[in-house]
Amino acid sequence: MKRELIKNLISKEDGSEVCLSGWVDSKRDLGNLIFIYLRDISGLVQIVFDPEKVKVVWEKSRNLKPEWVIRIKGNLSFRPGENVLEKHSTGNIEVLASELEILNDSKILPYELKEGEKIKEELRLKYRYLDLRRTELKDNIVFRSEIFYRLREFLHKEGFIEIETPILIKSTPEGARDFIVPSRNFPKKFYALPQSPQLLKQLLQVAGFEKYYQMARCFRDEDLRADRQPEFTQLDIEMSFIEMDDIIEMVERLVNYVLKEVLNINLKIPIQRISYHDAMEKYGTDKPDVRFELLLEDFTNDFKEIDFKILQTVIDSGNRIRGLRLEDIDYFSRKRIDLLTNELKSFGIPGMIYIKRKNNEISSSIKKFLTEDIISKLNIKDGETILILAGSDDLINPALSYLRNKLGRELNLVKDDLAFLWVVDFPLLEFDSDSNTWTYKHHPFTQPFEPEKLMKGDDLAGIKARAYDLILNGEEVAGGSIRNHDIQVQKQIFETMNIPEEIYMKQFGFLLEALEFGAPPHGGIAFGMARLIASLIGIENIRNVMAFPKTTSGNCLMTGAPDSVSAEQLHELKIKILKNEKE
Amino acid sequence: MKRELIKNLISKEDGSEVCLSGWVDSKRDLGNLIFIYLRDISGLVQIVFDPEKVKVVWEKSRNLKPEWVIRIKGNLSFRPGENVLEKHSTGNIEVLASELEILNDSKILPYELKEGEKIKEELRLKYRYLDLRRTELKDNIVFRSEIFYRLREFLHKEGFIEIETPILIKSTPEGARDFIVPSRNFPKKFYALPQSPQLLKQLLQVAGFEKYYQMARCFRDEDLRADRQPEFTQLDIEMSFIEMDDIIEMVERLVNYVLKEVLNINLKIPIQRISYHDAMEKYGTDKPDVRFELLLEDFTNDFKEIDFKILQTVIDSGNRIRGLRLEDIDYFSRKRIDLLTNELKSFGIPGMIYIKRKNNEISSSIKKFLTEDIISKLNIKDGETILILAGSDDLINPALSYLRNKLGRELNLVKDDLAFLWVVDFPLLEFDSDSNTWTYKHHPFTQPFEPEKLMKGDDLAGIKARAYDLILNGEEVAGGSIRNHDIQVQKQIFETMNIPEEIYMKQFGFLLEALEFGAPPHGGIAFGMARLIASLIGIENIRNVMAFPKTTSGNCLMTGAPDSVSAEQLHELKIKILKNEKE
Repeated sequence: MKRELIKNLISKEDGSEVCLSGWVDSKRDLGNLIFIYLRDISGLVQIVFDPEKVKVVWEKSRNLKPEWVIRIKGNLSFRPGENVLEKHSTGNIEVLASELEILNDSKILPYELKEGEKIKEELRLKYRYLDLRRTELKDNIVFRSEIFYRLREFLHKEGFIEIETPILIKSTPEGARDFIVPSRNFPKKFYALPQSPQLLKQLLQVAGFEKYYQMARCFRDEDLRADRQPEFTQLDIEMSFIEMDDIIEMVERLVNYVLKEVLNINLKIPIQRISYHDAMEKYGTDKPDVRFELLLEDFTNDFKEIDFKILQTVIDSGNRIRGLRLEDIDYFSRKRIDLLTNELKSFGIPGMIYIKRKNNEISSSIKKFLTEDIISKLNIKDGETILILAGSDDLINPALSYLRNKLGRELNLVKDDLAFLWVVDFPLLEFDSDSNTWTYKHHPFTQPFEPEKLMKGDDLAGIKARAYDLILNGEEVAGGSIRNHDIQVQKQIFETMNIPEEIYMKQFGFLLEALEFGAPPHGGIAFGMARLIASLIGIENIRNVMAFPKTTSGNCLMTGAPDSVSAEQLHELKIKILKNEKE
Repeated sequence: MKRELIKNLISKEDGSEVCLSGWVDSKRDLGNLIFIYLRDISGLVQIVFDPEKVKVVWEKSRNLKPEWVIRIKGNLSFRPGENVLEKHSTGNIEVLASELEILNDSKILPYELKEGEKIKEELRLKYRYLDLRRTELKDNIVFRSEIFYRLREFLHKEGFIEIETPILIKSTPEGARDFIVPSRNFPKKFYALPQSPQLLKQLLQVAGFEKYYQMARCFRDEDLRADRQPEFTQLDIEMSFIEMDDIIEMVERLVNYVLKEVLNINLKIPIQRISYHDAMEKYGTDKPDVRFELLLEDFTNDFKEIDFKILQTVIDSGNRIRGLRLEDIDYFSRKRIDLLTNELKSFGIPGMIYIKRKNNEISSSIKKFLTEDIISKLNIKDGETILILAGSDDLINPALSYLRNKLGRELNLVKDDLAFLWVVDFPLLEFDSDSNTWTYKHHPFTQPFEPEKLMKGDDLAGIKARAYDLILNGEEVAGGSIRNHDIQVQKQIFETMNIPEEIYMKQFGFLLEALEFGAPPHGGIAFGMARLIASLIGIENIRNVMAFPKTTSGNCLMTGAPDSVSAEQLHELKIKILKNEKE
């Protein structure tokens, strides 16, 4: 008899004989009747063992314990009420068992699955194959699969060609540290794992594959943060004979298609765009969360006449005084403001100024410096609080953005929404005062809007890049650019960055050579899949959307990777482990 | 104006204005008229530049050279005859150009693309991005993308969940050498790149994902043969609560679906099955090419009475005399037989016996030993040639299989067909006389048909495995098995192979532990994608179905991978390159 999935029981007739397989989720022994919940990939259903039905089966069922694997036959029974089978609970369907086969038993689990995230993550990562039995986690993995499928479906319909690029490649620095793989056939040489297929996807455009995509595995040997993993997957897209607007328009249709298919959500397109400059001005970040309105304000002019040395110094040095204006005055107790100020210390912010008007009374950390004129310029209404930071934009923007996001959440300003946003018009180059050179903002292959300025070395800070980031709820979920297909412009970027020709030719020579053999105009975009999926689900921890994640230090607690290898392996590779720092 | 793909011109009205982009494939300058073929991803079309149309455009077109990248506007013209646009040629559509924009120029290519595979492969691999412009190669990559898409489409419809498993894993030996990756965070420790996701996909079954698939990148640091690459992709499938026949039946529907969708071919299902024993008996190999009938024959009994010491010794030592019976007698000249015999030396075969009957005259390399009785037993008909090898099956099977495949091709016995075949009933274990131990035939996780025999150590050679290989035209395109979900059986396999407990627990302990927490019955299969696609296209060289393959020594001639890395990188990883063997 063919086994059914639990979710399909709903479409059967009352009394039908069915065969089910799965795990004992829980058991209740009422003395004469034994009830279990049986769990399979599709859901849960109650199974009843009744001594009146088949005695030996009932007897066998008495031994059952949670997480045992069984197969049962029995008859479907719709209990009174509406016939429903709720996804993760019982509904009112049950099966009266007539046969029971125990396929495997189980030791007692090292922790109760029902306790969920209350169990410390280390233990759950060690027994990841058990943790994945939890509905929340399993649903995330299934959701991820569904998103992947619909993305590919759209791209296939649009004529994109899926092409796999190699994982064992040449080290081509892209800003992060490479993982490297010693070569046995070529002693002293190493492969690198790709940080992205950037150069290879550009070469595929030179080859004439005008619409390429790939779910590409990427690797970065970085010191990991909570939202980073040493390997991650990006949906990698590249197109020829297109402009920035073509890619943006295609991505909007792509996202719209997937949201509709998977979540039945209609995306508002076109997605709004904001320039990098405006994003920094209004939100203090190039990843604004636009689920809420709260905008930064520039109060520099209002304080121009203030007789307070700290602010005067800031203004005189060309820096600014900016902040947020909020309404929930009762939230901003002295204690709360002190706590917030304290948190901002990690951003290097020495202090935060507040100004409140309650019952038309002004209170402020700089009250004695506030003239009537300043207060009038600030235009502070009764019930408002203004929080103010002063200093260079580079210093205060991260703190202001943090403050905005935190207050957005705490004051419940954040709407339950999927708020997409394009950030465009990034500067092509940034001046790095540490090394006293210009460096790239996105990556060195991005095309400038005004190549002639670049070629002349004119107003380098003012040159905008044909680059675009897609933000969802304050997280960067995709980023891309139009690339340089003109070799002169590409070379000029390296020159402007003061990279000697022999260096950039050693690293990128094969791409530069390819640009001379009929390279078409091209550009693309890449989605960080874990970030996208976590943001769509509305969770923070990207480990919860991966089957087998590593810890923040890059450890797999389940398998014990990384691990030691044999002396013979090292000998074959002609490498040796240094015993101490001095060697 | 929106750019069209060339393939879409066919559906336009005669005279329509169109905009096209692509590469100059070739150019003819007739003095007053200039013709080029324009190439894009979708095809080729003739563009005409006529000084009577727009003089400046015509003048500009005179500079065009092959592989320049252009955009044109012009008017479509259906030349007399049927309106066709052949895929890789011209058809009778042309475009009379009214605008021309040169998007990029091109140096003269290092070789003529039209020369194709006549150019030596090293040069073509160095300029892979140019070689991929050749229609043959480009079509293979597009075909591969299509096959990938349809495989996923079927699996998604069937409820399979795509799950990504990590690339940075623990070294879990599977018969080949691992690539290893030094860990910076854990000095002296290494990740390994997966030879396959075998253990992880089994853990996904323990986790309850009953239908899993993945296009999995796999890595083996082997000495490469022509048909091997250091990294390759397999379609990896695993299911729970199934038996061998369920997987075979699902795979048949899968293959049938894909062939129908992509090639409009109806596969005959069920695919025929043959036991490992019969395959070795009839074809001398477990990968028989069944596009032609030619079967091996066992002549041992016929020669029982022969007075020829070499054959007698073979028979007395329990070995056999087997060979092929063929009809094309004129092919088997003395010279040809000598050449064949010579080729078999690389298999360790000292000599081949032939017996021919032509015009009722017997000729043979052992004529003086052939009695009337033997000739009568051989039942050799006029016009037949019998080729015979003698020795142990292990020695002669590879040679007989080689001979069969070679003669099948040379005598044109091979039909133009897609001949699928299941090979089943493999032995679970093989005795390795070198190490004097039993070892696995597929991999150690395969379930025996008769676990009780294994547990008792009874008739180890006779235990069959629940394993199955799918063969297409003599190539193994997929292989799989039902796995051990019973920890006792799994442990017994390691014990039978004489692997000490501390070793198998160190390597596979996490899987064994998982089997104790409610592991369901499960099994799966994996397709070697490059092999499958090459076999479907009917080509030998798997490099021709990959975008960026490596040489047989694992070199990427395009990028120069593997390459040296900086002293700083090695220092961070705390490893050192050995300068000489002694170190």
